[in-house]
Amino acid sequence: MANPVLVEVLRGAVVESRHRGAIAVVDPDGAAAFVCGDVDRPVFPRSAVKALQALRLIETGAADRYGLADHELALACASHGGEPEHVAIAQAMLEDIGLEEGDLACGPHDPLSSRGMKLLRESGARLTRLHNNCSGKHAAMLARAHTAGWHTYGYERRDHPVQRCSLKSVAHWAGLDEADVGQAIDGCGVVAFALPLENMARAWSRLARAVRDNDGIPSRIVHAMCTRPFLVGGTDRFDSVLIEETDGRAVAKIGAEGVHSIAVPEQGIGIAVKVDDGAQRAQFPAVIRILQMLDVLPASLPPRLDEFFRRPVRNTRGEVVGEIRLVH
Amino acid sequence: MANPVLVEVLRGAVVESRHRGAIAVVDPDGAAAFVCGDVDRPVFPRSAVKALQALRLIETGAADRYGLADHELALACASHGGEPEHVAIAQAMLEDIGLEEGDLACGPHDPLSSRGMKLLRESGARLTRLHNNCSGKHAAMLARAHTAGWHTYGYERRDHPVQRCSLKSVAHWAGLDEADVGQAIDGCGVVAFALPLENMARAWSRLARAVRDNDGIPSRIVHAMCTRPFLVGGTDRFDSVLIEETDGRAVAKIGAEGVHSIAVPEQGIGIAVKVDDGAQRAQFPAVIRILQMLDVLPASLPPRLDEFFRRPVRNTRGEVVGEIRLVH
Repeated sequence: MANPVLVEVLRGAVVESRHRGAIAVVDPDGAAAFVCGDVDRPVFPRSAVKALQALRLIETGAADRYGLADHELALACASHGGEPEHVAIAQAMLEDIGLEEGDLACGPHDPLSSRGMKLLRESGARLTRLHNNCSGKHAAMLARAHTAGWHTYGYERRDHPVQRCSLKSVAHWAGLDEADVGQAIDGCGVVAFALPLENMARAWSRLARAVRDNDGIPSRIVHAMCTRPFLVGGTDRFDSVLIEETDGRAVAKIGAEGVHSIAVPEQGIGIAVKVDDGAQRAQFPAVIRILQMLDVLPASLPPRLDEFFRRPVRNTRGEVVGEIRLVH
Repeated sequence: MANPVLVEVLRGAVVESRHRGAIAVVDPDGAAAFVCGDVDRPVFPRSAVKALQALRLIETGAADRYGLADHELALACASHGGEPEHVAIAQAMLEDIGLEEGDLACGPHDPLSSRGMKLLRESGARLTRLHNNCSGKHAAMLARAHTAGWHTYGYERRDHPVQRCSLKSVAHWAGLDEADVGQAIDGCGVVAFALPLENMARAWSRLARAVRDNDGIPSRIVHAMCTRPFLVGGTDRFDSVLIEETDGRAVAKIGAEGVHSIAVPEQGIGIAVKVDDGAQRAQFPAVIRILQMLDVLPASLPPRLDEFFRRPVRNTRGEVVGEIRLVH
């Protein structure tokens, strides 16, 4: 059974391309409040579970022992833009535990934000592993290993205690047995988890509820993301703009290959979106529409969010020749 | 009714993303020999109709009067890589008719081939409209207008005779009334046509048949593409590699948003592929598999083509963590 078409790409008046996908919304009781498409099929949340991985960092005291501040926690949950501020924090996190860039298991890639790319080019500096959008998560994992007295070398491997802790956390928050969570290798080299979309939404509803109930550790993580949106994504990046424009009423986290997860703390609601084909251009309008349905966003969007919702298709002359639009 | 899944993207053993699409194969009699998915739905061939547009260039004598050679005809049909050789030919085409870069209606974009990008960066030269992958087509259109005594300014507009001729050619070869061909604006600013996928395949079967029957004008166009594959795409670009590896037994042309058209002259067959969501990573395996079914390509692919067929998914550490594979 095919998932429904979520988003169409028009050229003139004709649909040129279509993106199918699934959406799950889970309420504070853990029940599915709205589903669209097949939400039982396993998906890889990829970077959309970083907040759950970060939880284990605090739970074991790594954050406290080394005095990780909120800006460092926010970066641990981030897919950052490789901007100088992001890179500096990741570097400081490593220095705090006597490690350096070479200890990161992630490979380098071009900064994800335009500003990050521009500043790197202008600086003439070399691209490093610190520019990897996951470097904050990796630094946090190293802090975890360091604190626990585990070997830091090999921390990215499936059988390392750091990754086993991540599995435990993801399974617990998603309401799954560890054996029911699929495992593969992520773009940054650590373990990537696979779980049904509805369970991914359930994990974020539990996170939202925990924040609403002022449960210490999740509250601290989400508070860090809400108050430092720039660190969660970067300049003009969707998650940062959404958190800023909603004053933290919606805490969103993108994952690779068309995935998004969102917590709405005041409603105790969790949302998960997967675009079947992995196209990022389709997931932003879907996330925005769901948040409009939940009255978290107004029908008339603030301009910075509207740019993600009503995306014109432009040609190389800069002319608008089509649009990307939601089907419903 | 959803089109079938053509290609899956795996991470480890789990499917992470899926690409649906449609395929039409039309035999020398103009009948559908094989269809997969909805082949009646209009698609935009985009750059995959450049050969048909080029036909009108020769038919009206522009090529002969200005002595356009085969390498210039090949570039007129190309989505080139913006490499120095491509840029030089487009520039020469313009100079031949007393025009210059500024007369091109297409905007600039980064060279499509890695070599083109690298050489441009190293040269320190500015990016120009000549680097646009369509600059050969645009230069040919300007030659057409110049030869016919039409205004060259505005040649990209729907009501200009150049675009009306393109419409006439596309409709004729596809076996459609002009009124049944949709029109919008292409990425390079000229008119983009929309037609059913089966008609697109039919146009390429007629092109293939005309070549087989040694019909002068189409033969010359296809011959130009077959003997100058580098000009049709560029270094390591799919169409160039395919034409080279099949010694011109398959003449393929990519279009934006997941489109491909292929002529197999010796069999008089035309093929058209559209990936619903526009993802390029899905179309290459589909094109290769169809050519294997037609015995144009062997089951055991030459290494350069195998790279497009069995595409590993790598992470930022360079490790293979998954694969892109055909479903059938």
